[in-house]
Amino acid sequence: MRKPKTAAAELLNFVREGNKRRASELMTLIEEGSPEGEEYLKELAATPKRAYVLGVTGWPGVGKSSLVYRIARSLLGQNKAVGIIAIDPSSPLSGGSLLGDRERMKGIDGDERLFIRSAATRGHPGGIAKATRGFVKVMEAMGKEIVIVETVGVGQDQVSIVQMAHTVLLVVVPGLGDYLQSLKAGVLEIGDIFVVNKSDRQGADQTVADIEMMLGMNGSDGVWKPPVIKTVATNGAGTDELMRQIERHRQVLEESQSINYRRRSAAKTEILELISARCLQRIAERLNLEELLETYAERTCEGFSDPYTAVDEILRQSGIL
Amino acid sequence: MRKPKTAAAELLNFVREGNKRRASELMTLIEEGSPEGEEYLKELAATPKRAYVLGVTGWPGVGKSSLVYRIARSLLGQNKAVGIIAIDPSSPLSGGSLLGDRERMKGIDGDERLFIRSAATRGHPGGIAKATRGFVKVMEAMGKEIVIVETVGVGQDQVSIVQMAHTVLLVVVPGLGDYLQSLKAGVLEIGDIFVVNKSDRQGADQTVADIEMMLGMNGSDGVWKPPVIKTVATNGAGTDELMRQIERHRQVLEESQSINYRRRSAAKTEILELISARCLQRIAERLNLEELLETYAERTCEGFSDPYTAVDEILRQSGIL
Repeated sequence: MRKPKTAAAELLNFVREGNKRRASELMTLIEEGSPEGEEYLKELAATPKRAYVLGVTGWPGVGKSSLVYRIARSLLGQNKAVGIIAIDPSSPLSGGSLLGDRERMKGIDGDERLFIRSAATRGHPGGIAKATRGFVKVMEAMGKEIVIVETVGVGQDQVSIVQMAHTVLLVVVPGLGDYLQSLKAGVLEIGDIFVVNKSDRQGADQTVADIEMMLGMNGSDGVWKPPVIKTVATNGAGTDELMRQIERHRQVLEESQSINYRRRSAAKTEILELISARCLQRIAERLNLEELLETYAERTCEGFSDPYTAVDEILRQSGIL
Repeated sequence: MRKPKTAAAELLNFVREGNKRRASELMTLIEEGSPEGEEYLKELAATPKRAYVLGVTGWPGVGKSSLVYRIARSLLGQNKAVGIIAIDPSSPLSGGSLLGDRERMKGIDGDERLFIRSAATRGHPGGIAKATRGFVKVMEAMGKEIVIVETVGVGQDQVSIVQMAHTVLLVVVPGLGDYLQSLKAGVLEIGDIFVVNKSDRQGADQTVADIEMMLGMNGSDGVWKPPVIKTVATNGAGTDELMRQIERHRQVLEESQSINYRRRSAAKTEILELISARCLQRIAERLNLEELLETYAERTCEGFSDPYTAVDEILRQSGIL
């Protein structure tokens, strides 16, 4: 750690007291993938309190942010400490655009118990998932009881974020027709609760019926049959029922011990991803990896070598074989 | 390699002759991530002919598959050998649903110079990208001059597929409003050519204007200003103009040497990803990785350990440190 131990301990104390500015600093270190950020995460690992992670996922434009606002407001009303992580690049919660969207977050954005952070969607594969995982840990250390993660939920990187969640809301809007079809393959099973938002629009009941039919074909795990809820996030309609279903899912997870299973799988995935990253780091410490990559990439493109031979030679030179 | 060398050489000969059934077999080995598949890819690395890779990306429902059909038909008409890799799970080209969609592919699906293959979208992060890369190599070995990769293009895994492409078509439809907003952040720059499909619908000109405005704000790299093209893939309108722009982009890439840069970056990414995979494989050969993961995941969840310590200990035990 570059900072002296005392400064580090001080930062963590501030974070544990819920200091938003210091938590933001720490999250930036984590997002940058700095060794310092990693040291802090190590320190935070022993945090005894675990947050409940709620994933909210769906295509851009379905109103996830407004829904997250409704959920956050309801939780704050129950006197819960809430964290929000926005990953969807188009979310008004992410980036600087929150400032332009104060109206939507009115009444809660200044709440001391609420902390909002966006995650950059660029970078190397696995990068966002890693950062998001770190953000959840910082929020747990801050004492957040529920962390809401908003993501577009498409692509494997996003799927690995969704897997961190204990309850996943899959949000759609009426009349998406073709779009809904995409739920059939692979996406359907990630939803614990389906939300048809903007349900004051034409076709909402048909969309509910379509999803219920698809779910019916898909079968159930016997413990939990995903409910389909209609909401209008802009005016709050359906929020109460949604909150009831979220609470119900949480109870089912806890009673069936599934939550422990979900937490263990998430930890396994994290360890595996860290092993890969650590190996690359070790190799880069021993060799000029950038230069070797450049050389082998060129030879591969010219047909004089191939990526497999390149990997064998790089690993041999690094002493890792 | 489990198969005797002669059988392997025979398989590759069949593939090089364009045998679709044997190419499919090989692709399945690659998709499964088998060491055998890897051996074959090594053999194929010296393939002198490189295919031009065209990425077609956009949300489900925008008509990517119909557009791919139009492009493929046009290329076959120019007497080019064409490969198609469909990654979008909702694509009628992927999975078994192609059979139900014969009508759309009429006239070309039986063409000897055309080969279509879908890639599964499930599995570990990076898995599809790796399989797709292998599929492209098999198609190159089969003598395909152009390989079209169809993907929903969201999430980093999909982005890494898009990066394999030399020319990327970003497909939208009119009136997506909110959806289009998502293009602003991060997605916009992956498109070399923008396609407003279903442009017989209301609002097509507005959508074209919106994209042009966003592109204008984004600036240009000086060499290529992405054009915005209107198409109706179901009746073929706009296909000729689209094909002209694809050809124009290819020429610009080749003249500016950008294509070599794109090929080298793709090779670098591939080597890096293979290094990670190989390290995990080595560790799994030396240790009971599954059991260790289970143990450390449990201790992490209980707060007795943390993922970073787990990685240190696993790497130490494996002798890779």
